[in-house]
Amino acid sequence: MPESFDVLDPRAALVAVARDFHARGWMAGTSGNLSVRHDADSFWITASGCPKGRLNDGDFVRVAIEGCVELERIDPQARLSAESSIHCAVYQLFATAGACLHVHTVDATGVSLRAPATATSVTLPPIEMIKGLDIWEQSPQVELALFENLLEVPRIAAAIQQRFSAQPPRVPALLIRGHGVTVWGDTLQQAYNRVEVVEFLLSYLART
Amino acid sequence: MPESFDVLDPRAALVAVARDFHARGWMAGTSGNLSVRHDADSFWITASGCPKGRLNDGDFVRVAIEGCVELERIDPQARLSAESSIHCAVYQLFATAGACLHVHTVDATGVSLRAPATATSVTLPPIEMIKGLDIWEQSPQVELALFENLLEVPRIAAAIQQRFSAQPPRVPALLIRGHGVTVWGDTLQQAYNRVEVVEFLLSYLART
Amino acid sequence: MPESFDVLDPRAALVAVARDFHARGWMAGTSGNLSVRHDADSFWITASGCPKGRLNDGDFVRVAIEGCVELERIDPQARLSAESSIHCAVYQLFATAGACLHVHTVDATGVSLRAPATATSVTLPPIEMIKGLDIWEQSPQVELALFENLLEVPRIAAAIQQRFSAQPPRVPALLIRGHGVTVWGDTLQQAYNRVEVVEFLLSYLART
Amino acid sequence: MPESFDVLDPRAALVAVARDFHARGWMAGTSGNLSVRHDADSFWITASGCPKGRLNDGDFVRVAIEGCVELERIDPQARLSAESSIHCAVYQLFATAGACLHVHTVDATGVSLRAPATATSVTLPPIEMIKGLDIWEQSPQVELALFENLLEVPRIAAAIQQRFSAQPPRVPALLIRGHGVTVWGDTLQQAYNRVEVVEFLLSYLART
Repeated sequence: MPESFDVLDPRAALVAVARDFHARGWMAGTSGNLSVRHDADSFWITASGCPKGRLNDGDFVRVAIEGCVELERIDPQARLSAESSIHCAVYQLFATAGACLHVHTVDATGVSLRAPATATSVTLPPIEMIKGLDIWEQSPQVELALFENLLEVPRIAAAIQQRFSAQPPRVPALLIRGHGVTVWGDTLQQAYNRVEVVEFLLSYLART
Repeated sequence: MPESFDVLDPRAALVAVARDFHARGWMAGTSGNLSVRHDADSFWITASGCPKGRLNDGDFVRVAIEGCVELERIDPQARLSAESSIHCAVYQLFATAGACLHVHTVDATGVSLRAPATATSVTLPPIEMIKGLDIWEQSPQVELALFENLLEVPRIAAAIQQRFSAQPPRVPALLIRGHGVTVWGDTLQQAYNRVEVVEFLLSYLART
Repeated sequence: MPESFDVLDPRAALVAVARDFHARGWMAGTSGNLSVRHDADSFWITASGCPKGRLNDGDFVRVAIEGCVELERIDPQARLSAESSIHCAVYQLFATAGACLHVHTVDATGVSLRAPATATSVTLPPIEMIKGLDIWEQSPQVELALFENLLEVPRIAAAIQQRFSAQPPRVPALLIRGHGVTVWGDTLQQAYNRVEVVEFLLSYLART
Repeated sequence: MPESFDVLDPRAALVAVARDFHARGWMAGTSGNLSVRHDADSFWITASGCPKGRLNDGDFVRVAIEGCVELERIDPQARLSAESSIHCAVYQLFATAGACLHVHTVDATGVSLRAPATATSVTLPPIEMIKGLDIWEQSPQVELALFENLLEVPRIAAAIQQRFSAQPPRVPALLIRGHGVTVWGDTLQQAYNRVEVVEFLLSYLART
């Protein structure tokens, strides 16, 4: 697969993924954030407030997984996004995670808000597409973890870390109420593929 | 952000934004109009009757904010749009407005007509995307001003001016019944981002 | 408007319009047909059975308006479409018609089949977008003519001719039940703009 | 039609079709598979696990129709997809089949799961678009065969072969519950056209 996003320079690949997702309406305004692991201790993440259809490879900040502090930036105007804390939680929880992608869609938002107020997960539909999350079962019953949305993003990150360190999720994804999905993978290409799969599953739920 | 629309020549940038919105189905036929401020007293706006997917930078008219009269055109065939009066109202009301974008979508039209006949606003959904309009609250209750559609556009503009000078709106956008949204921002890129945010919010409302 | 479809060679322009409409899903398979007037007595129309996303300017037949017979073709494999008879009816009825475009969409099909079995028209929604069909009224009540679908297309064409010569339609468009819309205009660009407007109006109806 | 997919190198044409379908959301993640007949006894099929928007012409495996075993690959990393068995069944059943395309869409999935648990087919809507499957009748009643989804794909293939050798289908397509459509044609271009037609018909069903 020489065309894979994984053969590109990581930040250039994120620019391409951001343009792709923006064109689908999955990163409206300046919403969402995309990251790739740089090394064992840090990752590059899209800077705060940038329109995702028009990034360049300076619109990123390198962040320490431990402590979630900025380590490096290229464009002096790049600012650390508050949502970096969720990416930190993902990279800390999952040693093999090489990329983490967060997007907002109307369908995912709708599904998350249609769930009962006390729900802590959404049942994914047992359709063939779920194999894209490595679920190989006849009529699988798989839960997608659902978290409450809080104004202070680090508190969401803390909830994710607490819940997933107690009980690792079956699928590499999570949903925040009214806020959209966060998906991770060993590589950027794998995370990208999985975002499509999760959005397909939630779009199916939204319409049924 | 060197890729921002704001680094382009303003009319060339509007041509690009028009092509983008047209491709999404947000400027069907020759509908909608887009403007950028030229100086303290005037703005460039798309000429009347042009298909928005195929503009060139002559398809604009420069309009005086005060009095809403034509000051300049490049293509002699360019004609002043009746809807310029709404843009004039926006630039008069908001000294920092640098761009104003008006589009028609099926979802926004549907939401505006689903509102009760006596409604003067639509409640935006308290979802994460609303942060794209600079609303930073837990469970915000924010109203989007709703105006009646009138055949004589200057009367709509007058209603906007009257209402917003008495009570400035919380969000930089307004909805006209059966007609679509108008959104403004300090720069074209910011207005563009906000159109996406408002359409996401209304699309969410339309489906729930 | 130097970018208008009208400044292109007419067949090249139809190739571009076909690619555009196909990309939107409005010309699935080999469905739909597009024509431009060649002279007072004839028009060029897309040949039968060609995938509309991949036409070239040989995929057309020139047809006599009177009698609806083939006059000329460039590619010897191009075959006359049965639906040419509807285009003949339009050019005969409307002397100023310079282009005629017929597409199939899920929304238009749905609206046409949701109408009562005895209906001979569909009421267009009185929304701002209707101005794109040159209806300038407050709260207009405008009917879009609805025709029955018949296996023998010339019988549909005859019904159109009979009805519209008795009573010209208010809008330059018609709907065939289960079959889609046909729209015309003085120029190709105008017909193209109007297709977008009609589809917006029907899409609005389909969702309400 | 010099622009037809059929004039391209078969694998290059599949790369283009895969990119096209992926962009529509019909091949989310790495889902779906596309094949073209190589000779009387074998076909080229997309390799397992590749993202369909970013294939190159090494991402294919050549498979023997008889026995469904791999004959050839170009990229050593290309792996045979389990779903090749369904393609084998199609090429064995239909001697004139030159291409076979399988995609997953939200609408097709929804229609397949809305059908009663005991249904073995879905009635296609009697709309004009059905002519794209060579059904030329007034108000046709045509069934699209529906198969159960099974974790062991060769068992699905066996069910297809058994049913269709007893009773050939009226339309060159089948639906697997919760899994999507498989469509074939004499050429790649014809199969591509028919996928669009089948998806249009199912999308119409999904919305009514």
